[in-house]
Amino acid sequence: MSLNKWLESAMDGIVQRLGDAQAAIDELTPGRSFIVSERQNVVSMLDRLIAIVIPGFRGYDHGVAPDHDLETQVAAAAPLLHELVRKALDYASEARGETSPGDTSCTAVEVVRHVFESLPALKEHLRRDMVAAYEGDPAALSIMEVIVSYPCILAIVTYRLAHLLYEKSVPLIPRMMTELAHSRTGIDIHPGARIGPGFFIDHGTGVVIGETCEIGENVKLYQGVTLGALSFPKDGNGRLIKGIKRHPRVESNVTIYAGATILGGETVIGAGSEIGGNVWLTHTVPAGSKVHNQQPDPLIKAVAKDP
Amino acid sequence: MSLNKWLESAMDGIVQRLGDAQAAIDELTPGRSFIVSERQNVVSMLDRLIAIVIPGFRGYDHGVAPDHDLETQVAAAAPLLHELVRKALDYASEARGETSPGDTSCTAVEVVRHVFESLPALKEHLRRDMVAAYEGDPAALSIMEVIVSYPCILAIVTYRLAHLLYEKSVPLIPRMMTELAHSRTGIDIHPGARIGPGFFIDHGTGVVIGETCEIGENVKLYQGVTLGALSFPKDGNGRLIKGIKRHPRVESNVTIYAGATILGGETVIGAGSEIGGNVWLTHTVPAGSKVHNQQPDPLIKAVAKDP
Amino acid sequence: MSLNKWLESAMDGIVQRLGDAQAAIDELTPGRSFIVSERQNVVSMLDRLIAIVIPGFRGYDHGVAPDHDLETQVAAAAPLLHELVRKALDYASEARGETSPGDTSCTAVEVVRHVFESLPALKEHLRRDMVAAYEGDPAALSIMEVIVSYPCILAIVTYRLAHLLYEKSVPLIPRMMTELAHSRTGIDIHPGARIGPGFFIDHGTGVVIGETCEIGENVKLYQGVTLGALSFPKDGNGRLIKGIKRHPRVESNVTIYAGATILGGETVIGAGSEIGGNVWLTHTVPAGSKVHNQQPDPLIKAVAKDP
Repeated sequence: MSLNKWLESAMDGIVQRLGDAQAAIDELTPGRSFIVSERQNVVSMLDRLIAIVIPGFRGYDHGVAPDHDLETQVAAAAPLLHELVRKALDYASEARGETSPGDTSCTAVEVVRHVFESLPALKEHLRRDMVAAYEGDPAALSIMEVIVSYPCILAIVTYRLAHLLYEKSVPLIPRMMTELAHSRTGIDIHPGARIGPGFFIDHGTGVVIGETCEIGENVKLYQGVTLGALSFPKDGNGRLIKGIKRHPRVESNVTIYAGATILGGETVIGAGSEIGGNVWLTHTVPAGSKVHNQQPDPLIKAVAKDP
Repeated sequence: MSLNKWLESAMDGIVQRLGDAQAAIDELTPGRSFIVSERQNVVSMLDRLIAIVIPGFRGYDHGVAPDHDLETQVAAAAPLLHELVRKALDYASEARGETSPGDTSCTAVEVVRHVFESLPALKEHLRRDMVAAYEGDPAALSIMEVIVSYPCILAIVTYRLAHLLYEKSVPLIPRMMTELAHSRTGIDIHPGARIGPGFFIDHGTGVVIGETCEIGENVKLYQGVTLGALSFPKDGNGRLIKGIKRHPRVESNVTIYAGATILGGETVIGAGSEIGGNVWLTHTVPAGSKVHNQQPDPLIKAVAKDP
Repeated sequence: MSLNKWLESAMDGIVQRLGDAQAAIDELTPGRSFIVSERQNVVSMLDRLIAIVIPGFRGYDHGVAPDHDLETQVAAAAPLLHELVRKALDYASEARGETSPGDTSCTAVEVVRHVFESLPALKEHLRRDMVAAYEGDPAALSIMEVIVSYPCILAIVTYRLAHLLYEKSVPLIPRMMTELAHSRTGIDIHPGARIGPGFFIDHGTGVVIGETCEIGENVKLYQGVTLGALSFPKDGNGRLIKGIKRHPRVESNVTIYAGATILGGETVIGAGSEIGGNVWLTHTVPAGSKVHNQQPDPLIKAVAKDP
């Protein structure tokens, strides 16, 4: 049979069955007014905000010139952010079943104001992040090299921007922003985490930082570090309880080496501690601790002098 | 010397030597009719199929409008898929040294038919995947949030689409599709794996699921989990034997925590089991097992009260 | 308040404060003549070089036709590379505080010459990399499949190109190139590493290969392998000393399984050795060693027959 012949005969049935399958999904997602396809606008908005914070770093795909004029850029990014926040608020209102969403535009202005008023302080934190990377990695020859080639810069600036929206309880958008950074860098930071300045993640692939983590100043992580949850309490119906503290607190000047896993909302890593590679830790350690695995040395069999 | 002067003098030699080096590669890749540059068409085809399955999620880069009409979309995606499948079949025929490829167009229609007739069931599996993510992660506040910001959705929908082509023995294309998802999410699922509905991968970076894995319903994985091969049998000439069962079976309702490694074609994880973080497992465990590392606690030295 | 009203009232203050914050960053990055926004040009240059080495593989986003003519492509890529190298050299000169950068154009021609004269040998190495992937993975059904769907090909070709620039001490650009590959594949290879032909990385997510690594011929790595530094010597002022040997040497025909960590500039893995999954190794092992963890089996509790 030719493709067209088959298409002609089968199209109605396929479209009908796909529509039915979609109806079952639509039931689970009230508030489709926030359509899934906003993702592209989130990319554009995020890259424009990053371009404001690190001139030239991102955003040229979206018409931002490298020799940008800050006023022009702010004037272009603000309405984009406002529109997305408004849509996300409308979605949430619709999802809650409210018949009239209220004045979300006004709330969105408040969010935009919070974001832009926070940017200068965010830049100062980011400056300290850059210095931490340069001082923390012998391979880094200049801060310029850090800016142009360290994935943590993209991950951290994205997290810091998304956290501003999270602070204002904007639904969906903050998580979409950090997931973009996750896709671009392999570093997964939940926008809810609270992270001090001077934060450095070397290499970064596989790092996971959970929603209720608290991280002090000048903390350094390597690839594959998880700051995660130990267990998930359930309610009487066996459903996970959302929104409780379940991730660790890492105090200032802590270094955590590659592949270490630190879990639990009660777990605190005291200031200045050093957590060795691959360590699995589910309880608090005091300030100044050095924690290392005491596993037996690997078994070595010398099979042949030169195989 | 100026650049142009050097280019003029060196060009002939460079082109000659590059051509010679390419000739050595061409010998290894019979059937160049499937040119490497189809990758961009695979991106476009994949994103159009995803747009049909999750309206608005992907594909707007390729001219798919968010307020798409399913019939228009199916009519646009089907010929793209047909053309790629036909080319891949022609490549395989040429690579086998056949002088005439036979009627690959007709076979390709069969593949397209299989894909589109399977999409409604695929959407139902995907609906259960979305529910599993929402119910499995306390950080997920709505199914909409899962759709727009959980990387496993992109990885799983891509795997489920690629698996349809794998079932019809289409060469190259299925693996190109899942590798796109791997690049976008850090989750590497071979298109040959068989995975039931209600599948959830949290965070996901570093997850590897091998070709001959079988995974039941409502299975949950965390980042860095490997379901891999234990060893590779070789033939009499010392070459790896291709195509034998070498990856584990994971039964329904199993949870596998971050960084666990489960290896071997004989290994079965019984239904309802829980495999702890970083566990290394190369043998079968019965249904309902709880498996955890019993390694000694890490060594903690309290160096100073406040460094 | 309306968005425009707020923007009007707040703009001057925001722009002023953002400018002040940027000034503090500019102090740390002398030589802003190498503007951060060159990243897009590095993408374009890299993809054009890759298109020359693997016809059709990359670059069609930048106007390279699949049925390219090598001479046209070389003539297009060379000036792009020359311009970027020149800018990077000018940046470095400016960053060192030199008032006149000297004839960087001439040095840049030398770099371009080194790159293009090295490409044929690079292609031969890459051919051996492709063969190693095909022979090393039972899931690979053809070398064509390796080329079109194995992320290590993109990571390794990018590394091999970046290493050519590293050999000529070009600042910034080589690291920007390998970071692009890291973002696309999850494989992080520093351009300074020295890696022989026949190199294969399966899956690859989370692999980290440090600047001063030396890797022989026909070495095979799996996902999550780290070849890293053990400690960082500091100078009298407590600052990390840059540029000393701090990463391992891996001799020919070594296989390193998933998640293994090998650290230290004194550490040598002797030829033909096999390092097991998750092994943590900080000292030398002789040729032909088989190294495996001897940790206790995980603790298994059979909770219920069928949960």
